[in-house]
Amino acid sequence: MPEIYFDNAATTRTRKEVLDTFVKVSEEDFANPASNHALGSKVLHLLDRARAQIASYFHLLPEECLFTSGATEGNNLAIKGVSDHAKSWGKRLITTKAEHPSVLEVFRKREKEGFEVVYLDFDKEGRLDYEGLETALNDKTSLVSVMAVNNELGTIFDLKRVFEIVHKSKAKLHVDATQAIGKEELSSLFFDLLTFSGHKIGGIKGTGILLKRKDVQLDSQILGGGQENGYRSGTSPVPLDCSLATALRLSLKTLEERRHKAKKLNLFLREGLSKIPEVLILSPVDATPFILSFALMEHKGSIVSEALSERGIYVSTKSACSSREEGYSYVVRNAGYDLRTARNAIRLSFSGEEDLSQGEIFLEQLEDILRTTDKEN
Amino acid sequence: MPEIYFDNAATTRTRKEVLDTFVKVSEEDFANPASNHALGSKVLHLLDRARAQIASYFHLLPEECLFTSGATEGNNLAIKGVSDHAKSWGKRLITTKAEHPSVLEVFRKREKEGFEVVYLDFDKEGRLDYEGLETALNDKTSLVSVMAVNNELGTIFDLKRVFEIVHKSKAKLHVDATQAIGKEELSSLFFDLLTFSGHKIGGIKGTGILLKRKDVQLDSQILGGGQENGYRSGTSPVPLDCSLATALRLSLKTLEERRHKAKKLNLFLREGLSKIPEVLILSPVDATPFILSFALMEHKGSIVSEALSERGIYVSTKSACSSREEGYSYVVRNAGYDLRTARNAIRLSFSGEEDLSQGEIFLEQLEDILRTTDKEN
Repeated sequence: MPEIYFDNAATTRTRKEVLDTFVKVSEEDFANPASNHALGSKVLHLLDRARAQIASYFHLLPEECLFTSGATEGNNLAIKGVSDHAKSWGKRLITTKAEHPSVLEVFRKREKEGFEVVYLDFDKEGRLDYEGLETALNDKTSLVSVMAVNNELGTIFDLKRVFEIVHKSKAKLHVDATQAIGKEELSSLFFDLLTFSGHKIGGIKGTGILLKRKDVQLDSQILGGGQENGYRSGTSPVPLDCSLATALRLSLKTLEERRHKAKKLNLFLREGLSKIPEVLILSPVDATPFILSFALMEHKGSIVSEALSERGIYVSTKSACSSREEGYSYVVRNAGYDLRTARNAIRLSFSGEEDLSQGEIFLEQLEDILRTTDKEN
Repeated sequence: MPEIYFDNAATTRTRKEVLDTFVKVSEEDFANPASNHALGSKVLHLLDRARAQIASYFHLLPEECLFTSGATEGNNLAIKGVSDHAKSWGKRLITTKAEHPSVLEVFRKREKEGFEVVYLDFDKEGRLDYEGLETALNDKTSLVSVMAVNNELGTIFDLKRVFEIVHKSKAKLHVDATQAIGKEELSSLFFDLLTFSGHKIGGIKGTGILLKRKDVQLDSQILGGGQENGYRSGTSPVPLDCSLATALRLSLKTLEERRHKAKKLNLFLREGLSKIPEVLILSPVDATPFILSFALMEHKGSIVSEALSERGIYVSTKSACSSREEGYSYVVRNAGYDLRTARNAIRLSFSGEEDLSQGEIFLEQLEDILRTTDKEN
C-alpha cells in the first residue's frame, strides 16, 4: 500500500528544487558574506538577492525582511524584541488562547517578568473575541500577537479586522503566519511583524523569516557580529537563506492549484467523515482547506492514529510541537470542546499535492480500524 | 592562476560528505521528529543517534549535547542562560578582551542590565591574565567565559589552568571553542559549557552545538515546543543536525594530517614573511598552526588584501564578523599593539588541506603587490 502523509502542518517534504538551490550555493558560493574579498562579496550579493526576492512578495523593502532559524526563533524575537524595546511604557501585551507554544511560552515568561498579558478567547466557529481585543487595548499596550491560521484546527482569524482594531492604539500587530504562508493568499495578511518558517512550505528545517516593517522598533535577542541589520547576529547561512527564497517562490507559484486540490480533498473527507456516526468534525467550515481536524467519540485518538501509522497513513493527534507532552490538545479545549474531545482529536493536514484516491484509502482504513479496534472505556 | 583560499577561520568549504548526509536525510527522512507516527519516530532515532555521536567525542551524555543554529546562538544561550539562572546571587561575570563579538556583545548588554563584568587582559605572547582571573573571582561570580583559540591571532589560552582557577569558586566555565574544534585536540578543552559551529569545520552554515554538563543550570532563551530538552525550542532540523555529526566526524578523523600540513605551511609562511622588512608577525609562536596573522608597517592592510583578492588570493583583514564595521582589529589592539598595526593586520587561516605551493604563490604575489602598490602615508 502506498504511504499517505497527511501531516503537512507538522512539516512538509523538502522540494527537490529547494535542495538543488541549497547544494548549488553551498558548493559554488561557500564564503562568508561578511568577508571583504571577492568571494565574500559574491555571496553577499546572493544574500541580498534572496532577501529582496522574499521581501518583494510582501511588498516590503529588503531591510524589512530578516532571516531567522525558524518560526520559533522569529516569534521569540518579535515578542521579546518589541516588548523589551517598549518596556518603559508598555506593560500590557495581548495574545490569544489559540497560539502555538512558541508564542504562548514567551508570553508566560513575560508575565513572570512583570508584564500583564491578556489571552483572548476564540470559539468553535473560529471567531476570535474581537470585542475583547478592543476592550483589552489601552495606552500601555505595546504588542498584540495573533496567529493567521491555527495549526490544529485550521481556523482563520480575521487579520484585517484585528489590524484595524490594534491600529486604533499605538500597539503593533505581530502575526504568526507559519500555517498561512503557502496556504492562504498573502493579501489576507495584515501585520506590523510577521513570522514563518521554511519547512512548512517545502523548505529546509532550520530556515525562517521575520518581517518587520521599518517603523517597528525592536531589541535584538541574539547578539554578536551584527548580521541581519543588527537584529539577529550569527554568520549568515546564505545557502539556507537562498533555499528559502526558492521554497517561498514555488509555494506561491503553486498556491492556487494546491488550494484547489486541497479543497476538493477536504470536502471529500468532510463528507466521508460525517457519515461515520462517532466522528465530530472540529475544523470550522471556513477553515483553511489544508487542515481538517475531527474527534472520535468512541475511540482513543492516539490508538487510532497509531493503527493508521501501522498501515502507512500518517496523521497527527496534536500539534507535533507538543505531542510528546500532555495528553490532549489545548487548542481544541480552548475552542470550547470538552476534555475527551480534545484528547481524541485527529488532525489531517495536506500539501495540496494529494489525490482524492488517498482520501478514499484513508476513509476505508479508518472505518476498518474503528470497526476492529476496541472502543475507549 | 588557481584560487587560494586562506580565509578558513571565517568559514570553510562545505565537505561533499556533509552535503550528502544532509540531502540523504532530507530526502528520506523529512518528517518532524516530534510527530508520533512511524515516520516521526524514525527521524527522532536519527536525531538521537547524531546527538549521541557528537556527545561521545567529548565523553558526554547525549543529553549534554544541544543543537543550536551556530556558535553565536550557542554563546548567547550559554552566557545569558547561566547568568539569568543565577541572577539572584551571581552579579559578577568574567570574560576576556580577546573574545568574539558574539560573546562580548552579550556581556556588554549584561552590564547595562546591572551585572558587573570583568574583562581580562591578554598579551602579545598569547598569555591570558590568569592572576587577574584569580583575583576577579568571588562568591558572586556565576560564569567565566574564555575562548579556546582566538579567531584573529590564533592565540591559545591555557584552559586547563583557567578551569582549575575557576573551579576553586562555584562559577562555571564557558568555552567558545569555535576556532578550536577541528584545529586542536579535544583533550585540550576543559569546560562546563562549550560552543562551536559547523561551518568552521566543513559543515553547513546554520548548524552548531552547545555542550552543557548536566550539573550546569541554564535558563532557556528560545521558548516554545520544548525541543533540545527544553533548552532550545524550534522544530529540530534533523538533516542539519545529522550533517553536523558527519562534519565533526570527518574533521576529527583528518585532524592529525591537517595539523601536520598546516604546521608545515605555517612555518614556511612565517619564514617567508619574516624576510619582508615591513612585516610584523602577530600570531604568537605557540598559536594554532591554522591561523597566521601579520601586520604591514608601510602598506594599508585593506588595500593589500583587496589586491590579493583581485589575484584570486583570499585572506582576511579582520574577523569576518566585524569586518564591515570599524577599521581596525580590536583583538590586535587589545593584545597590546598600536592602532596602526591593528588597522593593517592581515589574517591567513588554513583548512590544513593546502599545499606548500599555495604558500609560495602567496608570498610571490604579496611581495609583488608590496613592490608595486603605493605606500600608506
